[in-house]
Amino acid sequence: MFDYNEYFSLSSQKMKASKIRELMKFASMPDVISFAGGMPDPLNFPFEDVKNIINNWDQKRSIFAMQYGSTEGYPPLLETLKRRMKEKKGINIDDQRIVVTTGGQQALFLISRVLIDPDDIVLVEEPSFIGAMASFLANLAKLVGIPLERDGVDVDFLEKKIVELKKSGKKPKFFYTIPNFQNPAGVTMSLEKRKKIYDISKKYGLVIVEDDPYGDLYFKNDDSFYKPIKSLGNDAPVLYVGSFSKILCPGFRLGWVVGDSQIIEKIALAKQSVDACSSSFGQVLANDYLEKNLIDNYLSKMRIIYREKKELMIEKIKEFLPDSVKYTNPDGGFFIYLDLPEKMSGEKLFARAIKSKVAFVTGEPFHTDPVEGDRHLRLSFSNSTNEEINKGIKMLGEAIKEEIQSLK
Amino acid sequence: MFDYNEYFSLSSQKMKASKIRELMKFASMPDVISFAGGMPDPLNFPFEDVKNIINNWDQKRSIFAMQYGSTEGYPPLLETLKRRMKEKKGINIDDQRIVVTTGGQQALFLISRVLIDPDDIVLVEEPSFIGAMASFLANLAKLVGIPLERDGVDVDFLEKKIVELKKSGKKPKFFYTIPNFQNPAGVTMSLEKRKKIYDISKKYGLVIVEDDPYGDLYFKNDDSFYKPIKSLGNDAPVLYVGSFSKILCPGFRLGWVVGDSQIIEKIALAKQSVDACSSSFGQVLANDYLEKNLIDNYLSKMRIIYREKKELMIEKIKEFLPDSVKYTNPDGGFFIYLDLPEKMSGEKLFARAIKSKVAFVTGEPFHTDPVEGDRHLRLSFSNSTNEEINKGIKMLGEAIKEEIQSLK
Repeated sequence: MFDYNEYFSLSSQKMKASKIRELMKFASMPDVISFAGGMPDPLNFPFEDVKNIINNWDQKRSIFAMQYGSTEGYPPLLETLKRRMKEKKGINIDDQRIVVTTGGQQALFLISRVLIDPDDIVLVEEPSFIGAMASFLANLAKLVGIPLERDGVDVDFLEKKIVELKKSGKKPKFFYTIPNFQNPAGVTMSLEKRKKIYDISKKYGLVIVEDDPYGDLYFKNDDSFYKPIKSLGNDAPVLYVGSFSKILCPGFRLGWVVGDSQIIEKIALAKQSVDACSSSFGQVLANDYLEKNLIDNYLSKMRIIYREKKELMIEKIKEFLPDSVKYTNPDGGFFIYLDLPEKMSGEKLFARAIKSKVAFVTGEPFHTDPVEGDRHLRLSFSNSTNEEINKGIKMLGEAIKEEIQSLK
Repeated sequence: MFDYNEYFSLSSQKMKASKIRELMKFASMPDVISFAGGMPDPLNFPFEDVKNIINNWDQKRSIFAMQYGSTEGYPPLLETLKRRMKEKKGINIDDQRIVVTTGGQQALFLISRVLIDPDDIVLVEEPSFIGAMASFLANLAKLVGIPLERDGVDVDFLEKKIVELKKSGKKPKFFYTIPNFQNPAGVTMSLEKRKKIYDISKKYGLVIVEDDPYGDLYFKNDDSFYKPIKSLGNDAPVLYVGSFSKILCPGFRLGWVVGDSQIIEKIALAKQSVDACSSSFGQVLANDYLEKNLIDNYLSKMRIIYREKKELMIEKIKEFLPDSVKYTNPDGGFFIYLDLPEKMSGEKLFARAIKSKVAFVTGEPFHTDPVEGDRHLRLSFSNSTNEEINKGIKMLGEAIKEEIQSLK
């Protein structure tokens, strides 16, 4: 049989299947209660809205939906997104441009392609989102972690790191951050820190990649805390990445990125050879969904549903997990992050937990430091039923207690 | 204002907007009759089928359609594609694997990523598809053109080139071919040449990337001429790329690639960081479309529609274009390729034609040799009405005649 090994490119030889993929195989087995995947609640997708929209398309819309579109995106959707980002996020979009991407994931990939040369440094929160890090690594970046605190990334550490790198003649290509309800840690960056990051960006010419897939899924009644860094001004090089995956559904693969026209043009150019354009069908649909304000009804509903799931999971954590386990209590999004008791390994705990048919993601893939990573685990409450949360956290508590016993 | 120039990666600094994009701006102006874009007939998209499928989804299907899917693709669709490729294309799929991609374009991009290191040689037909070459170039390949003849690529030239490269210590990473109704040339590779290419692939370990977006759109009643190179066996390293863009619609951005599991696994791995998965909505829909055999009715209809458009365009070419213009007469697909009279420049002709509001694509972007390229132009008959073909070819004929006069 033909052996492709001597044909693979250097970058593809370095690609490895992520550990999380291996874990997910267990997590998707029947009977397993899984808090592993960061997926929206499948029982509450707005499928009726989607169907109604499609059934009401005139010929012009149906042709747009089925034909090739422009690389930048469906023009009415670009306009609607601009308007919405101005109104809801306070982003001054006047001298900025947008390109629609195939999910937020593709936005991160294209930004990486356009900015990263092999061995370039990219700064990430520690811990950070696996998919983003995979894109940076696939473009052969070196990741440097900046510790995450309960009110967002350690901005002093960030600034010190930039200065330190500068002294050794290196300049990080960008800093990647998820300010709202971070994946995996579930923490939210304070307004004060957002301002500091904006200032650092301006002062040092540090490009900020601000990823905000969860920003609309806040649990308090007031969203004024969750304004993007991008909304602080356009004098600093901030790229804002949005996604339809959590505010409509992931199934259309739609995201977008906003920034100065100089870089957006380059991203669009890179996109041409990657997939030519994103789904026209999804874009025409997403535009109707925004324009008819169906999104706001859906988000009002989902904020309550996700908040209730989170509250139940926190309640069960308090009830069933030993006090030596610390946890974050997110103000939105999908995730709770656990700090395991001293000496406990997340990977060993996973092996024990999966026997009792409960799954999660170990911390390791989220960290640049595997030792630190192994002290954590991520729980997603977004796509579990109340019954699963109840039963699953109880079983997780038992597994943790058994693991504590075995360490004595 | 912030200047991204000192941040752009080397590969992105090399990216340039393709000339065709500039031309397309003219082509999409109102009142212009455009034979430029290679797009399906918008008036005959199977929108009613699509609507019916969606309206009949049960909860399970609607959830699959809206949720994240696996990177390899929606499992029922993978099975349906396997069955169809075996039955309709004669591809022995037993020890092969498939990954669903975001359009055929993404399949070409991922293959490039997985195989091409900077300065690697990729062999392409001369002329070849712009989007494919853009993917190869974006991954910093060097393109070497192999002349296309009226019965497909010059296989002797191909073999000589491989031997010549081998002598100088170089090995091409792959040969890219569109055997059926080639884009842009509209020619079809003979069965004899397909067999020779299969043998060359086996003999020299030459990876073949066989792109077949148009293979189902043949104009004769017999499809036995259009069997893929891939159907000749799995002893040679042939990657077969399929697309839903011309057999359903481009709007869902769905394609696929079939090959040995060793390379398909690598492609799926590369895809994880590019867009995680392709549209679930599109995939569930495409699976129903195939399974309910709606596709065969649609294809039967479209073969007649496209054949009639082609016949009309050929008739009008005979009527209105001077005899010094040579043209291909395709057995399927979307394109007719013209050889212009001696000394005539395609680019200059375009400038003249666009003034009379008729547009096409100049040959240059399809060629590795710009001088040869400028002697051609591509006409697409697929998305024009009869009236537009009638009027547009007449105007093109006038522009060519004026251009001939001006050269005297």
